Amino acid sequence: MTYSVAVSGASGYAGGEILRLLAAHPDIEIRTVTAHSNAGQPLTAHQPHLRSLAHLELQPTTPEVLSGHDIVFLALPHGQSGQYTDALDDTALVIDAGADHRLTSQEAWDQFYGGDFHDPWAYGVPELLTGDGKLREQLRSARRIAAPGCNASTVSLSLAPGVAARVIDPADIVSVLAVGPSGAGKSLKPHLLGSEILGTANPYAVGGTHRHIPEIRQALAAASSGSAEDIRISFTPVIVPMSRGILATSSAPIVDGVTDAQIRDAWESAYADEAFVQLLPEGSFPRTADVLGANTALLGLAIDRAANRVVVVAAVDNLVKGTAGAAIQSMNLALGLPEGRALTMNGVAP
Amino acid sequence: MTYSVAVSGASGYAGGEILRLLAAHPDIEIRTVTAHSNAGQPLTAHQPHLRSLAHLELQPTTPEVLSGHDIVFLALPHGQSGQYTDALDDTALVIDAGADHRLTSQEAWDQFYGGDFHDPWAYGVPELLTGDGKLREQLRSARRIAAPGCNASTVSLSLAPGVAARVIDPADIVSVLAVGPSGAGKSLKPHLLGSEILGTANPYAVGGTHRHIPEIRQALAAASSGSAEDIRISFTPVIVPMSRGILATSSAPIVDGVTDAQIRDAWESAYADEAFVQLLPEGSFPRTADVLGANTALLGLAIDRAANRVVVVAAVDNLVKGTAGAAIQSMNLALGLPEGRALTMNGVAP
Amino acid sequence: MTYSVAVSGASGYAGGEILRLLAAHPDIEIRTVTAHSNAGQPLTAHQPHLRSLAHLELQPTTPEVLSGHDIVFLALPHGQSGQYTDALDDTALVIDAGADHRLTSQEAWDQFYGGDFHDPWAYGVPELLTGDGKLREQLRSARRIAAPGCNASTVSLSLAPGVAARVIDPADIVSVLAVGPSGAGKSLKPHLLGSEILGTANPYAVGGTHRHIPEIRQALAAASSGSAEDIRISFTPVIVPMSRGILATSSAPIVDGVTDAQIRDAWESAYADEAFVQLLPEGSFPRTADVLGANTALLGLAIDRAANRVVVVAAVDNLVKGTAGAAIQSMNLALGLPEGRALTMNGVAP
Amino acid sequence: MTYSVAVSGASGYAGGEILRLLAAHPDIEIRTVTAHSNAGQPLTAHQPHLRSLAHLELQPTTPEVLSGHDIVFLALPHGQSGQYTDALDDTALVIDAGADHRLTSQEAWDQFYGGDFHDPWAYGVPELLTGDGKLREQLRSARRIAAPGCNASTVSLSLAPGVAARVIDPADIVSVLAVGPSGAGKSLKPHLLGSEILGTANPYAVGGTHRHIPEIRQALAAASSGSAEDIRISFTPVIVPMSRGILATSSAPIVDGVTDAQIRDAWESAYADEAFVQLLPEGSFPRTADVLGANTALLGLAIDRAANRVVVVAAVDNLVKGTAGAAIQSMNLALGLPEGRALTMNGVAP
Repeated sequence: MTYSVAVSGASGYAGGEILRLLAAHPDIEIRTVTAHSNAGQPLTAHQPHLRSLAHLELQPTTPEVLSGHDIVFLALPHGQSGQYTDALDDTALVIDAGADHRLTSQEAWDQFYGGDFHDPWAYGVPELLTGDGKLREQLRSARRIAAPGCNASTVSLSLAPGVAARVIDPADIVSVLAVGPSGAGKSLKPHLLGSEILGTANPYAVGGTHRHIPEIRQALAAASSGSAEDIRISFTPVIVPMSRGILATSSAPIVDGVTDAQIRDAWESAYADEAFVQLLPEGSFPRTADVLGANTALLGLAIDRAANRVVVVAAVDNLVKGTAGAAIQSMNLALGLPEGRALTMNGVAP
Repeated sequence: MTYSVAVSGASGYAGGEILRLLAAHPDIEIRTVTAHSNAGQPLTAHQPHLRSLAHLELQPTTPEVLSGHDIVFLALPHGQSGQYTDALDDTALVIDAGADHRLTSQEAWDQFYGGDFHDPWAYGVPELLTGDGKLREQLRSARRIAAPGCNASTVSLSLAPGVAARVIDPADIVSVLAVGPSGAGKSLKPHLLGSEILGTANPYAVGGTHRHIPEIRQALAAASSGSAEDIRISFTPVIVPMSRGILATSSAPIVDGVTDAQIRDAWESAYADEAFVQLLPEGSFPRTADVLGANTALLGLAIDRAANRVVVVAAVDNLVKGTAGAAIQSMNLALGLPEGRALTMNGVAP
Repeated sequence: MTYSVAVSGASGYAGGEILRLLAAHPDIEIRTVTAHSNAGQPLTAHQPHLRSLAHLELQPTTPEVLSGHDIVFLALPHGQSGQYTDALDDTALVIDAGADHRLTSQEAWDQFYGGDFHDPWAYGVPELLTGDGKLREQLRSARRIAAPGCNASTVSLSLAPGVAARVIDPADIVSVLAVGPSGAGKSLKPHLLGSEILGTANPYAVGGTHRHIPEIRQALAAASSGSAEDIRISFTPVIVPMSRGILATSSAPIVDGVTDAQIRDAWESAYADEAFVQLLPEGSFPRTADVLGANTALLGLAIDRAANRVVVVAAVDNLVKGTAGAAIQSMNLALGLPEGRALTMNGVAP
Repeated sequence: MTYSVAVSGASGYAGGEILRLLAAHPDIEIRTVTAHSNAGQPLTAHQPHLRSLAHLELQPTTPEVLSGHDIVFLALPHGQSGQYTDALDDTALVIDAGADHRLTSQEAWDQFYGGDFHDPWAYGVPELLTGDGKLREQLRSARRIAAPGCNASTVSLSLAPGVAARVIDPADIVSVLAVGPSGAGKSLKPHLLGSEILGTANPYAVGGTHRHIPEIRQALAAASSGSAEDIRISFTPVIVPMSRGILATSSAPIVDGVTDAQIRDAWESAYADEAFVQLLPEGSFPRTADVLGANTALLGLAIDRAANRVVVVAAVDNLVKGTAGAAIQSMNLALGLPEGRALTMNGVAP
C-alpha cells in the first residue's frame, strides 16, 4: 500500500528534511507540499537539493489543501498547527514537528510559550523510557504524533536511563549544547547571518529561558515515574559554525553508593537493542559528523568520581533524529511498517 | 629603552602569536626566533601571515642561541623548558608559555603530566583574585613568569569572583567549553585534520582527564584562600569549527541565602576597573568573535534560580588572552610598562 | 544474487565513502575491509560514522586477503594498485579509485605522476561524451574500471558538451575550483590541519601542475574526437573550509558565429536523459550543499557575450560523484544492475 | 593635531571596520557614529567587538548630525551618499565607502547600478598604477575620496602591473573569486543565513553581471593608458564559508614573445617599494588567513606556458584592504600622515 502525504512548511528546514527522507521511502507518495508566502513557486526554488522532487510546486497552506491525504506533516511555526485540527479530523495520521502538542502541563506551556494550549499528542521518541517501558508502544497505535524538540530529545535520551535506574540525581542536571544554526530555522534574524555564525561560538537563551527545558523535565519525570518538579536542569545552548548537529554534554551527580558497573549498566540495558540510539564503548565519545544525515543518536558515557558526576555526551543530527527522522520513525511505527524504513544508521562523514 | 627578545617555538601557534603581538610593541626588538626541526628556514615559511618579520630566519633552539637576550619566551611542548633554566640564569625575564612552571602541587603534576616537576613561577593572569588582592602585584616584580593554560585561565577568571565572595559553591562546578583547534597546536594528528574538524563538534578529554583541571583548582583555591581539594569541577572541552576562540559555559550552585544583587556585585566589583576582563550588562552574553585577536575576556552572567545555579559564559581568544596576550601583558607589568601596551581591546569581527 | 566485496584502503576517505554507499546496496555483501598500518583494529576506530559496519575488523592489504571476492575496490595511494593485478586476475570486477589506470598516455603519466605506467581501464564516468556516444556503453562490459579524479570528472562533465558540439574553443579553458580538503585524503600534512583550513581559502598546484590536468585533456579530447594537444586548460584549485564538495567555475571562449540557443542546446541535449548530471534552468547555479552525499553533478550555464566566454559552474560531492559514487554507478553498470542503485539524487542540506 | 570624525552606517560591517581601525589611530577622535533604523541604541548593541567604543551611542544619519566634523566617512548603501553632498560642503575630508563616486563613465553606471550618477572622486587605492605613476599622488591632495569595491581593487591590483607592462592581454581576463559573506553586508537575505553559508560554496552574479566589473575595467584601462572597452573580463565570485577574505584567481593570456623574466619583473618593479601590496617569492601563493585583519594584499604569480596564461592569486581582507583599510590609508595620505598609521601588515592567523 502507498500512503499519500502532504507536507506543510515545505520551504523551511524541518519541512525540507521531512521531504528528503520521505523521498526515499518506498511506501510513501509525496502528493502535496505547501508553504505560506512562497506558494506558487517550485519546491526547488527553496529546496534546491531535493532534485528528485523538482516536479513539485508549493501550494498555499490551507485546511482545504492539506485535507484528503492519508498522512499530513505540519512543519509550521509554534502556535500555528491548532487551526488545522478540525480540517484534519479525518486524516488517518497527523504528525506535528512544532511544539504545540508536546507539553502535558498548561502551566509549563504558559510560562515558556504562551498563547493557546493544545492537547498533548503521542511524543515521537520511541526509545525514550517511561516508567514501565518505552514510548515506542504508545506510538504503535497513535493517530496524532508530536515530533520532539531537537535539543530536548537529545538531552532526554542522554539521561533517561540514569534517571530511571536512580543512579544519578535529577535535581542538579547541567546540559551545555553545541548546536548548528539550522535548529533556529530559516528566520531572517541578524544573529543568524553567515557572517555572524562563521568562526565564532554564540550562546543564547542562557540562564533557564530555553523552551526545551519543560520538555526535558517532562520526559525525565516520565522516565523516573516522578514529577517534573523533581527535575532541575541548567541548560545552555551555544551556536557553533556547523550547519546541523547537536553535541550535548550533560551531567548529573552520582547517587551515593552506586558502583561504576551499575551506572554503565543503566545505559547499556536501556539501549542494547536499539538501532538508532547507541552507547559507544567505554572511553569513546561521538562527534556530530558521525550522525550527519542519519537517524542515529550516539552516546558516550564517563564517570568522573573526582567531580562526582556522570557525564553523557550525545551527538544527534538536529534535523534527522532531532526532528524529521523522529517523525518518520514514529510514522513507520504508527503505520506498522519496519521502524527504520527510509532511515539510515550511518552518518555522512567527513 | 628597547628590550631584545628571543622567541623559541617560533614555528608553532603560540610562538607565532607571541611574535604577532611583539611585532607591534614599540619597546621590543625581536632579535632571535628559534625552532626545532625547522631551523634554517625563513620564519614566513611557517608563519606566512607575519609579513613584517619576513627578514627573520629560524635558528635552532639551543641554550646558546637563547642566551644573551633581555627577554626570552619559551613556547615549547610541555616538559621541555627545564633544560634551558641554567643557560637563562642571567636573562632578566623569562616567560614560559608551556605548563612546566604553572602548578604548585607536585602531586597534581604527577597525576596529570608526569615527568620532572619544576618550581612554580609567577602565574600570568594579572586580573585573577588571590585571597588578598590580584596576581597583578606579584607580576610587577617577577623575573620568571608562567603564562596560563588557555582553558584554565578562562574558567578561573569566570568563577573566581563568585568563589572569593562565597556566593557560589566551588564543590560542584561544571564547565563545558567550545574551543577552536588551534589550542591543540600544530600537532599532526588525524583528529585535527581539517576534514575532521569542519562541520562537526568533537569532545575530548571527557570525564576529568584534561590537564587544565588542576590549574583551575589551584587558581580558585587561591581566590578563596582555601584548598584545591575543596574545588571540584566537571570539565569537558568540545572542539568546534573555528580556528581560535574559547566559549566557556561554567556554572556552580548558588550558596543558600545570597541575593541576586550580591551575586552580580561579586563579579562587578572584581572587574570594574579592568580593561581586559569585562562583565557585560545583564542579559548580554559574549561571542568568541567579539574577542578574536584581542586580549579581552568578556563575561556574561546569569542567575538561574530554577536550576539553583549561577551561569557564567566567557569568551576568550585562546591564543591571545589565553596565551600570548597574557604573556605580553605580564611582560609589560614586569618591565614597568603600561600594562596594555601592544594589546588590543577590540576583536576582529565579523 | 549477492556479490561479495573487498574494499582496500578502508580507513581512508575514499574507502570510507565506498563503504557508506555499499552498506545501503541490497545486492552487496561487504565481506572484507583492509588497511595498511591499521590492520587489526575495528573499522569504526577509523570510520566512526559507519555504525552499521561496526562488526568489521580491518585486515592487512595483501593479495591473499583481497583475492576470492566477486568485486574488489582499490582505494590506495597512487602507484600501489599495480602490485595486486596478478592476484586479482580471477576477480570478476576490480575498481580502482586511484590514478594508476586512468591515463592512456604514458607521456602524460610520466610528466605528472612518474613511476610505473599501467594500462588504462574503462573510465568510470558513464555520462561523459565520447566521439560517438557516452562512456556508459564501455562500462557495461567492463571487468576493470578506473574511477575518475574528482576534479577531473567535474571539469570534464562541465565542458564536454560544448567541446563536442564545437560551440566553445577548447584551446583556452580556464577552471578555478573551490574544493574541500577531503579530496586530499587523510594525509598528515601541516597545511591540512583544521587550524590551517578554517576561515581561509588556500590555493595549491597553481600554474599548471595539478595531476588532474592530463585527465581532463584526455576526456575532452575524446569528447571532441580530437587530440589532447588541442585542449589547453589553466587549472587552479582552491581549498575552502567545507569538508567535502567541489564548485568548479570553468569557462572557454565562444566559437565565432554560434548562437545562444546553440550553446545552451549543446548541454541540454547531452544531459536531458541523465539522472545524475543535471543542467539547471537558465539563471540558476548550483551550490555544493545541494549535492552533499549525493551522486549528482549539478551544472549552471551562463553565456557572457561581453567577455566572449561560456561559463559553466558545476557542483559535485568529491567523495560521491567525484569518486565513490562514480565507482558504485560504474559497478552497477558492469553488473547489469539498475544504474542508480544505492545512490541518491538528493543532497543533504542545509 | 587631532581630527574629529563622524562615521555613518556605523551598525554595518564596513562602518564597524572603519571604527575598529580608527579606534587605534592616535590622530583621530571618533566623535559621532550614526545609523538609520538603529539610532538611539548603544554602538555595542550592533558592534559588540568594539569594546573600546562602548561609550558611543548611535545617532540618526542626517546632514545636521554629520556636518561639523573634520572628516566624515559614509558607509551607506549605494545611491545614498549623494543627499549629504551639500551638507558636507565645508567638511575638509569626506570618504565614501559606497559605489556612488567610483565610476567615471555614466554609461557604465547606468548599466550596472542605475539611479542618479555622481561625479567621480579620487579612487582610494594608492598602489594602483596609472599611466604615469600611481594613484597615491592624486590622493595626497584629495578632499573627496571613494573607497574601492573590495573585489574590484583586488583584481585590479592583481593585474595592473601586467597590463601596464603589456605582458598580458587584457582582452581575455578570467577572474574567479572565493569570497566571504561579509562582503555582502548585513542584509537579511535567505541565501546569507549561516545555515546556507556553512559547508558549501555558492556562486552568484555569474555571467558578467557583477557591479565590480566596470570598476575593474576602468582601473585597468587607466593602468594601460587605454580604454575600458579594451578590457574584457569574465568575473565569477563564489561565496565560501569564511567570514571575511577574498582569494582572487585571475589570469590573462601571455603576450607573444615576452619572457618569463619580463613577466615577473612587471609585478616586482610595480610593488617592490610597497608595504601593503606584496609579491610573494616564486612558487609561493597566499591564503586569506595571512591577511585577516591586515591592510595587506598578497600576490602570488605563476606563468603557465602550457595554458599560455599568467595566473595571479591575490589574498585580501575584504573589510580592510578591500574597504576600511583602503579608506584609512587614503585618509592618512590626504592628511599628510604616515601612510600606514593605524594599519597592520600582519594578519591574524591561524
